[in-house]
Parts: sequence; C-alpha cells; structure tokens
Amino acid sequence: MSDALRIGIAGLGTVGAGLVRLLTENDDLIAARCGRRIEIAGVSARDRNKDRGIWPGRFDWFEDPRELAASGRIDVFVELIGGVGIAAEAVERALQSGKHVVTANKALIAARGAGLAAEAEKWNLALNFEAAAAGGIPIVKALREGLAGNVVSRVGGILNGTCNYILSQMEETGRSFADVLAEAQALGYAEADPTLDVGGGDTAHKLAILASLAFGTVPDMDGVYCQGIERISPVDIGFAREFGYRIKLLGIATMTARGLEARVHPAMIQLGTALADVMGVLNGVVTESSAAGSSVFEGRGAGAGPTASAVAADLIDIARGLRVPAFGVPSNLLRKAERAPLGEREGTFYMRFDVLDRPGVLATIASSLADKGVSIESMIQRGRAPDEKVAIVIITHEARESSVIGAIKAVEAAGAVVEPPCMIRMERL
Amino acid sequence: MSDALRIGIAGLGTVGAGLVRLLTENDDLIAARCGRRIEIAGVSARDRNKDRGIWPGRFDWFEDPRELAASGRIDVFVELIGGVGIAAEAVERALQSGKHVVTANKALIAARGAGLAAEAEKWNLALNFEAAAAGGIPIVKALREGLAGNVVSRVGGILNGTCNYILSQMEETGRSFADVLAEAQALGYAEADPTLDVGGGDTAHKLAILASLAFGTVPDMDGVYCQGIERISPVDIGFAREFGYRIKLLGIATMTARGLEARVHPAMIQLGTALADVMGVLNGVVTESSAAGSSVFEGRGAGAGPTASAVAADLIDIARGLRVPAFGVPSNLLRKAERAPLGEREGTFYMRFDVLDRPGVLATIASSLADKGVSIESMIQRGRAPDEKVAIVIITHEARESSVIGAIKAVEAAGAVVEPPCMIRMERL
Repeated sequence: MSDALRIGIAGLGTVGAGLVRLLTENDDLIAARCGRRIEIAGVSARDRNKDRGIWPGRFDWFEDPRELAASGRIDVFVELIGGVGIAAEAVERALQSGKHVVTANKALIAARGAGLAAEAEKWNLALNFEAAAAGGIPIVKALREGLAGNVVSRVGGILNGTCNYILSQMEETGRSFADVLAEAQALGYAEADPTLDVGGGDTAHKLAILASLAFGTVPDMDGVYCQGIERISPVDIGFAREFGYRIKLLGIATMTARGLEARVHPAMIQLGTALADVMGVLNGVVTESSAAGSSVFEGRGAGAGPTASAVAADLIDIARGLRVPAFGVPSNLLRKAERAPLGEREGTFYMRFDVLDRPGVLATIASSLADKGVSIESMIQRGRAPDEKVAIVIITHEARESSVIGAIKAVEAAGAVVEPPCMIRMERL
Repeated sequence: MSDALRIGIAGLGTVGAGLVRLLTENDDLIAARCGRRIEIAGVSARDRNKDRGIWPGRFDWFEDPRELAASGRIDVFVELIGGVGIAAEAVERALQSGKHVVTANKALIAARGAGLAAEAEKWNLALNFEAAAAGGIPIVKALREGLAGNVVSRVGGILNGTCNYILSQMEETGRSFADVLAEAQALGYAEADPTLDVGGGDTAHKLAILASLAFGTVPDMDGVYCQGIERISPVDIGFAREFGYRIKLLGIATMTARGLEARVHPAMIQLGTALADVMGVLNGVVTESSAAGSSVFEGRGAGAGPTASAVAADLIDIARGLRVPAFGVPSNLLRKAERAPLGEREGTFYMRFDVLDRPGVLATIASSLADKGVSIESMIQRGRAPDEKVAIVIITHEARESSVIGAIKAVEAAGAVVEPPCMIRMERL
C-alpha cells in the first residue's frame, strides 16, 4: 500500500466534526478504495476546548489555519472555515505551498474560483469542491466528468434546503413565511441571520458554480439575478395548488443565444414533475444535455453527513491520483460569458392583483396586459364583495418578461391595486 | 496538447453510430475537457455497407472485432457488440494487448466482470462500463467515486426502460400487458424477443453490477432473484392506484446481516415518492448510504444519445488519465457475498385472490393468513355476485415473505380460488 495521504482540516464545526467521524469510522473501507490510508495530520479551529464529540486532542493542533495550510506535515488542505476572508488566505497559502485543496466554501469558489483554479493548475494540484453545491448529491462530478461528453444547455434546481423546508412547511400548515421561519430558526434549520438563505444568495453562489462547470465559463456571481422567498404568501401557495403547481425557490442557469441567463427566484413548477416532489430540506438538480437529455439528481444538500460525504469523495479522488481541472476545462479556456438580459426571456407567469371589487378594475388589468401584448391563459376571481379587497389571479400564455413587468407597472400606475402585485415565474424543468 | 487518444469501436448499431456522431459533433469541446483529442482510429461491424448515417468509410475498417482489439493503431477498445461470445473474446484480447476497454455490455460485466477487472489491473488498464447500467445516469461513477466515502447499504430502482414504458402505458390506457407489449414492439421500444426485458433479466444484469460497485462484492448474477412483469394485469394496477401506489419493475440490492439480498420483481411503490413518478422509458436509481443518506438519480437509461454519453464519459476519463479499479476496489479485495434467503425478508405485501362469491371463502383466506402469522392491514372486496368471480384484495402488515407465500399456498390448496393468486411486494425506497 502507498503512503498515507495526510490531510489538514481547518474548521471543526458541524461539517468538520462530521468529516472526522466519517474518516475515522470508514477508515479501512476508504483505504481499500484508495489503495492508501487517509490520515488526519492536523486540525485547526477557533476554540480548542469546545466539545465536538470527536476528541481533536489526538490530532496536531494549529491555532492559525494559514499555518496549517503551509505545514509540511500535510498533503491536502481541507478548508471548512467558510467566508472569503481567512479562508481565502488559507487556501491561497495552501496552493502556494504545494498542497491540494478540498473546500466546501461556495462563497469562495463563486467569487474567486477561476483564479484559484489557475493557481492550482500551475502546480498540478487539485482544487476540489464537491461539497460547495448540493452536498450529498455528486453533481459537481456529474457535470465535470459524468456528462463531459455532452454540450450542457441548462442546469438548475432546488439548491437551498432551508428555503425548501420553509416553503414545504408553509404549504403543509398554511402558516405565513415569518411564522415558519421563526420555527425553523428555533429548530436550528435556519440561521439566526437567515438573509443568505431566504434571500437567495446561497442559491446564487451554488448556481454560479454549477453554471461554470456546465458551460465552461468563469463563475459570475454578480451576473446572477437574485430574488428570495420573503414575499411568498400562503395565498399564492394555495392558488398554485389550484392550478396544479407548487412554489419552489429555484436557481436556473441556461446558455442561450443571447448569453448566459442565470437567475434565482421563487417559481411555480408543475405537480408530478421530479422537482415538485422534492420536499423538506432535500435538494434537487436538473441538467439538460445534448446526448443524455434531461437528468435529475435528488438528495440531502447540507448537514454534517452529506457535506462530509462530498468532502470525503474529493479526498478519495486525490488519494487515488485523479486530477481534473477544477471547472472541467483548463482555467485559461474558461470563457467570460455574456449576460443575457432577463427582460428578453420568454415564459409564462402567475400574477396576483389585490384590488377593490369595483366596476372597471378587471377592465384596467385586462387592457394593461393587452397593451403590452401579454395574453391570458387562465384567470380566477373568487367571490364578490363590493368595495372590499378581492384577489384577481392570472396565468399568462408565453410572454416576454419585460412586457409582463411593464403591464404590472401599468396596473399599479392606474391605481387599480390596494397591495403591491405579486408575480411568480412558471417553470418547466 | 498531448497525443490524441486513439479508439477502436466494435459494433456500429444504434449506440455505436450515436457514439461516432457524439465524438464528431463535440470534438473540440471534448478536446478542451481532456487536454487531447479523442480520435476514432478503427471500426468494426457486421455489415460494412449498411447505411448508418455516419459514413464509416472514413475510419479504418476491421472485419473481425478481435483484430481491431489487438491492433497497434488503437489505445482504447470500445466494445458495443453485446452478448458474451465474440464480445468477451475481443475484450480479453484487447486487455491482453495493452488496450484500455470501455464497454456498454451488461451481460458481459455481470458474468465476467471480476475476472476482466483483474486482468485490466494487472496491466494498469482501465475497464470502464458506465453505459452498462442506466445509460444516461452517471450512476457507476456516483457509486465508484461520488459516494466512495460512504458505506452503501442499498442500491436499486427502475433499470429497464422497456418495462417502465409498458407499465406506464398499461396504467394510462387500461390495456393489457400483451396489447401494450405488441404496440411497444411495433414502435421499436421493445425487442422482437422481449424476454430479456420483460422477464427481468436485463434488470438483473444491471443490478448485479450496481451491487458489486456498492458493496465491493463479486458480481453474482445467479444470486439475483428474478421475476418479470408478464403477469401484471390492469386489475392490479387499478387496485394499486386505489391504495395510493404504482406498480414498477424494480431491481433492489440490500446488504443485510444475512448477506446480500438482490431481487428483481414488480413492486408497489407509494405515489408521491421519487421513483413512483419516473414514467415512460426513464430510469431511476436510489442509493442509501451512511453519510449522504438517500440519493435519487433519474434520466434516460437507454438509446443512442444516453448510452453514447456514458461511453464518452468513460473515454474522457481515460483521456484525462483517470484510473479507478473497475468495481471501486482492487479486484483481489472483491468479496464473494453470502446470498440472503429471500424467504426471511420482512415486508408488506399486496395479494389478490379471485374467488367465487360463496359463504366461507373469506374465512378460509383469513384463517390461512392467521395460521402463518400474517396480519391484514387493509382489505377490499368489491361488489357481491353470489357464485360469480370476485376479487378479494389484501394488504398485509409487515410479514415474513416465506409466511406470506405459505399462506397463499394454503389458500390455493383449500380450493378457495378460481385463478392463481397474485402477490406483489410493496416497497419503500
């Protein structure tokens, strides 16, 4: 058997502790699969004395992750710190000192992936980040290797378990976003500051990474349109259901003739399709590719086990001597993608207008839509309550997004609504 | 850029022609991903003059695939002949002459995979067979690499598109198995001799391969219990629906304390679960693993595009210099698994007894079940038609399979039924 692969783990939170457990428990199995052992040669974390149930005392301790990254005692630096500050410094330090890098850090890879990939290639080092998108689902490997014979035209799906849990709970219980979020926070399913999850930022990080792998483009976080789930109400979830749809927070990247269209927003997807049934904290990813067609991957996206599984797979790849460019092509071939303007996208749309039940209101809405060339596929106006608030819900035929937004603005400008209108894109995946 | 990887393709049927098209169309993309070109240096097929829409005249032609396999002009032998005769000889010849092998041949890998893997390892050659199970779904790579940090406890799913298409059509149209099969044959979705598909043999081949990858065991085709879909009737599909289930042909391999339990049979799975919604010719695979939990993979399992996609991924791995033991561990570590007797399995069961509507019949059935310790969860007896045939449908609580089969035999022996009873296992996946 060859020499052990010596790894240093920076960050011993849920994922780091989970990784230590996994590598310890499956020690022999992993050695059989790699032809060599994976040995934890050093660790680093903020608090040496915290009880993590893994007794880190048996590993060499480094106060500063950057020191661990540069240490001659390791072959691979595993970065589980998160964020772009110290983590970025440590990863750069590791590459510069000839260490392979495995990271679960989506923010880092989305922001600096291309530069780090170039640095890694220069020294023939691995930069692996399976855990950065949809943890337990081996989607990075699927895009980089399993589908490598295909031209991929689209990748996306449900990439944030917290949002999916909240939307699933809202549907199940009929409760409001704020209510369910508070409960999710109490249960530890949502962070104290939930902005990155519910605002769509976390999904956007992951989408930027998946798009790079799919299309061979430089990760472009700033090019991702991003809208969260904060404004989704039980009313819309109910209407969606009536039309045979379910609301999910999706991240979708499509390579179009106009450039790369990358967007994160709540969307209605048809019941009975694969992603519609991905409930609770699960993630689901769909790829569209030239030869394989449509493929769906579902599984647990976060948490100690699934993330540790992804990190372990990256480590096993390194131990087996497998090297693939971080984004599937050498970094000098990564293209800067044009950004496709979202307004030019064609799609179907759900709209809800809360109006006072007065003569002429429906005519205003109908003519605003007609003026912009948006045609109506179905409409629901439930109940009649003169001079009280009623909801008019419309689903459009295929229409241009900018026209739909223009029509909605016109309805608002005409003073026909008593609340800001709600628009949700409908998606076929 | 390094030297081109020179490949020889034996077999130019649907898949072979699809592969030639894929490699030609995505030539530059694949070169970028591999750092070298993949060049078709030779081909072999039965009929040189058949029109395949790919003009094989531009490649070196070999009358005998075994000659191609041994030719100094190739680095990789791609075996798309099928079956175990000539294909096996050619693959052995290729390995002995120092060629990597990529094959889509499930029968060959299920029957001789361990021996071929050993031969390949001896010479440090790749033996890749992503296309042998669930074509467009990169499940071989997922098990061999993506989930390699996990102890996998179960793998299985819908592995045969023909059966899934037939069952989907039977449900949609209410027509009989024979009817739908005939139509599928006319449409080219089923072979003239459909035995291997509808009898479950094809699923068993794929399951034997997936089980090896999941559990590190020698492929054991003969250990797979195998029952096809020929006896599934629209009546049972209808009852399944009433109970909230759908009938699918499943292949399931589970590592139990009693050994490896590998079985192929029609099963009822709950509506709303991932596999229940895999309709038509699609395939779906579920894995259960220690850290990643439950993962689901769906996509097109067969046909020119998906199979060519899988073969191309294997070729790209070779071009990139990636080598992993064929079954994930060196072949000398592959264990011979004990076979777990199916009779000892615990599960829930659907049974349909066609009986004459006479006093005492239900008592006979109920007491036969009670005698074997099988308890009833629900029962349907529809309509009353004294002295005519009625169906009594029962769903059991958790029970031992041998007890259920014993009870059914007792009912038959008591002369209570007018047709052979129907039993379908219910599955949670």
